[in-house]
Amino acid sequence: MDNKIYTYDSTLRDGSQAEGISFSLDDKLKIAYKLDSLGIDYIEAGNPASNPKDLEFFNLIGSGSLKHAKLVAFGSTHRVGVNVEQDENVISLLRANTPVVAIFGKSWDLHVKDILKTSMKNNLEIIKNTVRYFKQNGKEVIFDAEHFFDGYKHNPAYAIQTLLAAQDAGADWLVLCDTNGGCFTDEISETVRIVKEKTSCRLGIHCHNDCGMGVANSVMAVIAGVNQVQGTVNGFGERCGNANLFNVIANLQIKRGYSCIPSENMENLTNAARYVSELANTAYDERQPYVGGSAFAHKGGMHIDGVHKNPKTFEHTNPETVGNHRRFLMSEVSGRSTILQAIHTVDPLLDKSSSKTKEIMNKIKQLEYEGYQFEGAEASVELLIRKALNKYKPFFSLHQFKVSIDEPCGSKYSSFALVKIDVDGKLEINAAEGEGPVNALDKALRKALEVFYPGLSKVRLTDYKVRVLDSHDATAAKVRVLIESSDGVHKWSTIGVSTDIIEASWRALVDSVEYKLILDTKNTIA
Amino acid sequence: MDNKIYTYDSTLRDGSQAEGISFSLDDKLKIAYKLDSLGIDYIEAGNPASNPKDLEFFNLIGSGSLKHAKLVAFGSTHRVGVNVEQDENVISLLRANTPVVAIFGKSWDLHVKDILKTSMKNNLEIIKNTVRYFKQNGKEVIFDAEHFFDGYKHNPAYAIQTLLAAQDAGADWLVLCDTNGGCFTDEISETVRIVKEKTSCRLGIHCHNDCGMGVANSVMAVIAGVNQVQGTVNGFGERCGNANLFNVIANLQIKRGYSCIPSENMENLTNAARYVSELANTAYDERQPYVGGSAFAHKGGMHIDGVHKNPKTFEHTNPETVGNHRRFLMSEVSGRSTILQAIHTVDPLLDKSSSKTKEIMNKIKQLEYEGYQFEGAEASVELLIRKALNKYKPFFSLHQFKVSIDEPCGSKYSSFALVKIDVDGKLEINAAEGEGPVNALDKALRKALEVFYPGLSKVRLTDYKVRVLDSHDATAAKVRVLIESSDGVHKWSTIGVSTDIIEASWRALVDSVEYKLILDTKNTIA
Repeated sequence: MDNKIYTYDSTLRDGSQAEGISFSLDDKLKIAYKLDSLGIDYIEAGNPASNPKDLEFFNLIGSGSLKHAKLVAFGSTHRVGVNVEQDENVISLLRANTPVVAIFGKSWDLHVKDILKTSMKNNLEIIKNTVRYFKQNGKEVIFDAEHFFDGYKHNPAYAIQTLLAAQDAGADWLVLCDTNGGCFTDEISETVRIVKEKTSCRLGIHCHNDCGMGVANSVMAVIAGVNQVQGTVNGFGERCGNANLFNVIANLQIKRGYSCIPSENMENLTNAARYVSELANTAYDERQPYVGGSAFAHKGGMHIDGVHKNPKTFEHTNPETVGNHRRFLMSEVSGRSTILQAIHTVDPLLDKSSSKTKEIMNKIKQLEYEGYQFEGAEASVELLIRKALNKYKPFFSLHQFKVSIDEPCGSKYSSFALVKIDVDGKLEINAAEGEGPVNALDKALRKALEVFYPGLSKVRLTDYKVRVLDSHDATAAKVRVLIESSDGVHKWSTIGVSTDIIEASWRALVDSVEYKLILDTKNTIA
Repeated sequence: MDNKIYTYDSTLRDGSQAEGISFSLDDKLKIAYKLDSLGIDYIEAGNPASNPKDLEFFNLIGSGSLKHAKLVAFGSTHRVGVNVEQDENVISLLRANTPVVAIFGKSWDLHVKDILKTSMKNNLEIIKNTVRYFKQNGKEVIFDAEHFFDGYKHNPAYAIQTLLAAQDAGADWLVLCDTNGGCFTDEISETVRIVKEKTSCRLGIHCHNDCGMGVANSVMAVIAGVNQVQGTVNGFGERCGNANLFNVIANLQIKRGYSCIPSENMENLTNAARYVSELANTAYDERQPYVGGSAFAHKGGMHIDGVHKNPKTFEHTNPETVGNHRRFLMSEVSGRSTILQAIHTVDPLLDKSSSKTKEIMNKIKQLEYEGYQFEGAEASVELLIRKALNKYKPFFSLHQFKVSIDEPCGSKYSSFALVKIDVDGKLEINAAEGEGPVNALDKALRKALEVFYPGLSKVRLTDYKVRVLDSHDATAAKVRVLIESSDGVHKWSTIGVSTDIIEASWRALVDSVEYKLILDTKNTIA
């Protein structure tokens, strides 16, 4: 375990401080479970004092629901002029009821003077009091030395004193933060080496990317001797973001033999990065190292030629190691192992070389080329595979639908939908009003289908996301609709892509309904 | 001039090998002039042998049209078994008629064996012959040692021999390339130091970003002693891209006192980065260091508070230095000072205590509570403030709209919209078909309005995002629509929230149109 590096994810806290990102409570729970499944050691899930939604999260997730990761509540040292046990931030942190707290304190004299407006000595007392109080309350305490590197540049003696104050009070970790992201790799390495000599506590690193060096700085800090590395999925975070945690993990584990997460989870990094991006409703950073869609995409003719002769000639590592795949931009090639995995959920006996497998792979490649993205739409993938394997029968066929929207409208609903379907030769026509055309269509379709399949009455759409795929001209671009549905027990996601938002939504709706009907059939058989 | 670092831009060559990028001849000319105006020293503009468009470019731009930069044609050493003066690549390079050529050669034994399939000795001869031939033809010769760092790891003696072959033949520069982007900062620094001892020629660095370290590696190579740094605008390039040249320049020049470009041009970096992104027709990377729109955007309440007290507390450098600017994002974690700043763009005289300010703040809080998210919707915020301050007059009023959607439909469009509006007592009724109801509505509204306001004809929706706010029950939940619009010069974002997606989209559409009309009024007055 000598080479173990503890991984600390701050996507739910620092990541949510990124421009354009606002996680719902449900998003946060899903991300926490995903990070836990990867084997991340610490999950910093929020600042309960600054944000009531975060406190609700901690209450909701409760204790013991994570398999491996420790939950961390994040907050500051107690306020100037307030007793630690009466400080509202401190009380909120305890109320979060996590095994671990991360306490950030000032280590740059400028902040003590200009922000806290207190004496240098009092800041040291505040750090000590706060860390000691949480230790007395049975917490594992991570001391985040905010702006440590800037502080060290301006007043090295004082910066070290703040670390020693936390260490003396019993802190379990001292985390050196480049909060403003303005430090260079040489400064980080050198400073870590000095801190290691002057302290005895375990050290961590927290880097931002304002000079474009967040990943290099984190990696070099580990090489210089820290044992914990903090970052966020996709590098989400204030301003230019935090160090991209998956990049740091891949670099350390694949290239320098450190152990960050269980090796069998490495191949899940790409899917996890896409999953978090989907939940954040942001455009995925395809160019990001290791897990981006372009990371192993070869375009230059000499590069493609070289890779055909020997992949090592133009690939710094094997894409499959992180669950990614090689692509030749002239001829789209899609990740076979991922697809094979999905095929095995329908038919465990099919192997890579079977013609059916190849047929499915080609179909998925074709759809991906057209703008589908199957990472967040497992139910649609299963349906596609079932269709290819003849393990699917249509539950209904559509004769016609009509939607109309009127404004001003006299009632709560501006949209009306009429749907006419055929189930085993029996026609059913039904209609509904709704909050928008998709809502009206969804209701009308389900009303018509419920006549034949009463189980559908429990299904609700729980999320509906729309993304324009090619943003150069939104009016001529394709639209991707992701729908999440639930019957109160299961939850599933489906996808539709079209130049027409209604057509795309309709495809995702139909997949959702059919997936539920298959689910019910399976359960009846089982 | 001791601290001079020569800048070498490869946007037009390596940048065009990025996924999704394809420059027209006109784009290439515009980018070359822009880079020249910044004071970039070398512009690598293409590979005339591999791409006839590139040869055309060199013929078109001719000699003497650049004020400062030297044009570089890029190509490989001569082929195995062909005389240098008869090699087609070499002939094309001469035909490009540039003062400088960059010749890439093999420095990794693996490539000599697997790609060139020749002897180690012959490769050295090929390098020598090629460099010597271009020197005899009066060129400044830059020798790009392809895969140098990988080569050095596997066979250090041979990698150095390839450099010495080029040096002996008279090369002006030896550029060490991390072609696969797989090297770490410590390896780069250490290797550069060794090469500096073993060679006498001036050195350059060319890094890719496959480990997320492209910028750090380039900067640390300069600190270790190279005098030329290669990169691309926005980091465009094969796979994960090249080192982001503007980030490297800003880091070296602002923070370490090197001279890369004339200091008076530093403030043009942000505009230049956006300009190149526009020409490349890619979504601008807003999160990129220094020049991204988020690079100095503060969201966390404590960060915003800190920056108000002293910008240094949360900014690693002054945004104006690179032509960027500070932004405060509105969000559940940001405070009153952000709103006040937005108010000041409309009325600089209002202060915190005025009743109008309080009214606006309460209105914004109320809307945020209802699900609005004003971060990313500055245009809607400005309209809201204008309405509160009576600095707004409605440009039109809606009498009625109707949308209908039919499936199956006989044509490309399933949606039809009819809009009836009133502008100063004049009624206009118009209609359009579209890819979905919002697209049809948008077109119909603008067709009707263009009768009165012809300036609207330039407006296009460039992005459209939909998010369900409360995911527990999507059918009863609110929907947030974010629309991004552009008139080719400006870009603005508007928001609408409603339980009805059409209603939410309509509000965002109306805000978008009204914002553009206010913009035009401002420009007419100014």
